[in-house]
Amino acid sequence: MKQSELFSKTTKNLPEGETAKNAQLLIKGGFVNKSSAGVYSLLPLGLRVLNKINAIIREEMNAIGAEELLMPSLIQKKYWEQSGRWNTDVIYKTGQGSDYGLGWTHEEVISAIAAHFINSYKDLPKAVYQIQTKFRAEPRAQAGLLRGREFLMKDLYSFHADEKDLNAYYQKVIKAYKKILDRLCLKARLTEAGGGAFTKEFTHEFQVLNPAGEDTVLYCDSCDWAQNKEISKMEHGNKCPDCKKGSVKMERGIEVANVFKLGTKYSEAFNLNYLDKNGKKNSVVMGSYGIGPTRLMGTLVEEYHDEKGIIWPDAVAPYKAHLVLLGEDKKVKKEADEVYKILVRHFGESEVLYDERKASAGEKLNDADLLGIPWRTIVSDKTVKMKKVELKRRSEKEPKFVNEKQYFKLINKK
Amino acid sequence: MKQSELFSKTTKNLPEGETAKNAQLLIKGGFVNKSSAGVYSLLPLGLRVLNKINAIIREEMNAIGAEELLMPSLIQKKYWEQSGRWNTDVIYKTGQGSDYGLGWTHEEVISAIAAHFINSYKDLPKAVYQIQTKFRAEPRAQAGLLRGREFLMKDLYSFHADEKDLNAYYQKVIKAYKKILDRLCLKARLTEAGGGAFTKEFTHEFQVLNPAGEDTVLYCDSCDWAQNKEISKMEHGNKCPDCKKGSVKMERGIEVANVFKLGTKYSEAFNLNYLDKNGKKNSVVMGSYGIGPTRLMGTLVEEYHDEKGIIWPDAVAPYKAHLVLLGEDKKVKKEADEVYKILVRHFGESEVLYDERKASAGEKLNDADLLGIPWRTIVSDKTVKMKKVELKRRSEKEPKFVNEKQYFKLINKK
Repeated sequence: MKQSELFSKTTKNLPEGETAKNAQLLIKGGFVNKSSAGVYSLLPLGLRVLNKINAIIREEMNAIGAEELLMPSLIQKKYWEQSGRWNTDVIYKTGQGSDYGLGWTHEEVISAIAAHFINSYKDLPKAVYQIQTKFRAEPRAQAGLLRGREFLMKDLYSFHADEKDLNAYYQKVIKAYKKILDRLCLKARLTEAGGGAFTKEFTHEFQVLNPAGEDTVLYCDSCDWAQNKEISKMEHGNKCPDCKKGSVKMERGIEVANVFKLGTKYSEAFNLNYLDKNGKKNSVVMGSYGIGPTRLMGTLVEEYHDEKGIIWPDAVAPYKAHLVLLGEDKKVKKEADEVYKILVRHFGESEVLYDERKASAGEKLNDADLLGIPWRTIVSDKTVKMKKVELKRRSEKEPKFVNEKQYFKLINKK
Repeated sequence: MKQSELFSKTTKNLPEGETAKNAQLLIKGGFVNKSSAGVYSLLPLGLRVLNKINAIIREEMNAIGAEELLMPSLIQKKYWEQSGRWNTDVIYKTGQGSDYGLGWTHEEVISAIAAHFINSYKDLPKAVYQIQTKFRAEPRAQAGLLRGREFLMKDLYSFHADEKDLNAYYQKVIKAYKKILDRLCLKARLTEAGGGAFTKEFTHEFQVLNPAGEDTVLYCDSCDWAQNKEISKMEHGNKCPDCKKGSVKMERGIEVANVFKLGTKYSEAFNLNYLDKNGKKNSVVMGSYGIGPTRLMGTLVEEYHDEKGIIWPDAVAPYKAHLVLLGEDKKVKKEADEVYKILVRHFGESEVLYDERKASAGEKLNDADLLGIPWRTIVSDKTVKMKKVELKRRSEKEPKFVNEKQYFKLINKK
């Protein structure tokens, strides 16, 4: 992709009141556009990042036997009334006489659908997920992509004959979420949290410890113990209640995922039953598991940036390689065009951004740092004379001057 | 994919009042679930079809240099007021005091975004598209996937320095839409239609002539002339006003796509200007082009079905091959498992549906006809004895008994 043809440009202008670091950098880089508080457009660069996050999520969901579907946002009042959630603060209502509540979660709809297809123990277990736009009437929406009024959610629902089977799948999902976060280069703490309306047991959240987070997490500096402050009886400095060795620390956390055992709450409300081997009718036992792609994108920016811009991990970078031409000399341009061809052959056409714009070296290098593509390659008068290119990893300080062979050796090592 | 593990099942039960053939067959086959009038969930089988339609659309959009982005559904009142479209019948309003109108089209949002990035003639032309959920408060929503209150839309917007450049791109989009419809095996008439608020010229719609359509199309039986009845002065039986030879016919049509020249209506409302070579400020000239993936899916069912079920064209079938095991003999099962492996090797794992359920031959064959996967392969006691398999194309009547070599010869011919 030639950078001169990109729809977006970098900018220094921020919309009024945009205080979240993640949104600031994403707007400056042309990844997103702010439409209103908590509502963003994903511009082509941002959508590329989001699609890579989604692809990783899909792979790990498919790997645990979940099938993808897509539910609607217009959810009739009768669904919410059946579960007792029509009068919820976060629900946007619409339609003549408020007939619909916009989907902020889909336990109601999926339970009603599943009741069509689950009738016997032979139909269990099942698991389905969607990657879908959610709406929540958040009174405060000032954390950029960390708390949207409209945002993308991957929600997974599982259906089981009994709690034992649910518990086993719950652990499977936790493992899958760990894999997703690992692949995204996010370190997250599996944190005990409140059950809400669903269950008396603790639920679990994945918390990325980061000052931008809106939650507070107490965790052990020695073992894996962690609790959301909302439910914890511990304080900073206490001895860890689990390993009895470490010390309890307190930090802000971004909740990037959560897992819930729903039990039979929704299956009872929506007549989701099955006949067991003895012909006895039972309620289906359910689980619900969420991970937020747009919030993950915001979290990645909070975790990976410096004063110059974003530093995307390779797995989600909008492009793998950024080729920057410096100077307007025809010979240099010709050489850069050649390098572009070589990079496209190696990375694929859709993975190389080529900055062939007529702009100053300073502007181009600043933009490259802001965009945060992992591998920056410079072709300039200097490099042409050396018969090399300049290669720099965004996360490192010093560039290397390399020929083609050295180039790919370095890149393939990472 | 083993059919016993599929989330959905076929059903004979239809929701009350579901009169549209496309929705009836899609519900019976387990492709979609009706949530309420004009609102459907895409079940895993249906989402597979939709994703294939979307992939074709994306390829053809990228081929004409359009970049993909994703705009929000929560669109603040101020955007709609700026264009004068806040008081539109089809808009769903939500928020405290109706602050948002749910996006039923995105000229407002894209114009506001483009104003950030288009400043000079050097920034033109540009084209961006999205595949996104739209909401329309349709009073009548009884045509299944042909007219939803919530539906998927691919909307493309283009930006030009002048009308000449817009006109050239308009023709490019028409060609791209023709390619998309060709690849989907849909014959559509390019039909002149009313300009609405946008322009004095005719706009164009792609109409698939089908009795399920909600539009009426007048067309020539000899040349390409076609007009929407709403604007036409012709009647059935008239001599064609274009070629003067053919005769004008009248039929129902499904509008699957449309193309509009917007001119400067939205660029003026949203200060979307550029400086030309002489430093003079001009309004950007815009075009808007829509094609509806979920409506296309409904149209495909209306066009391709018989009394037994759907007959998917290969390009969009949920699976390419359907393997059906008949009987419960262990030897036959073992042979079917072997054939499954061979088919997976040829088509890929995600393209073969394997009906290994314990069910009667009648039930399995009826389900296969209902699902409409293009190639049905039967392994039964009879075929094992013959050392062949039974291969039948869904669109043909007679099966063929073939060995492996003949099998792939037949399949690759199509």
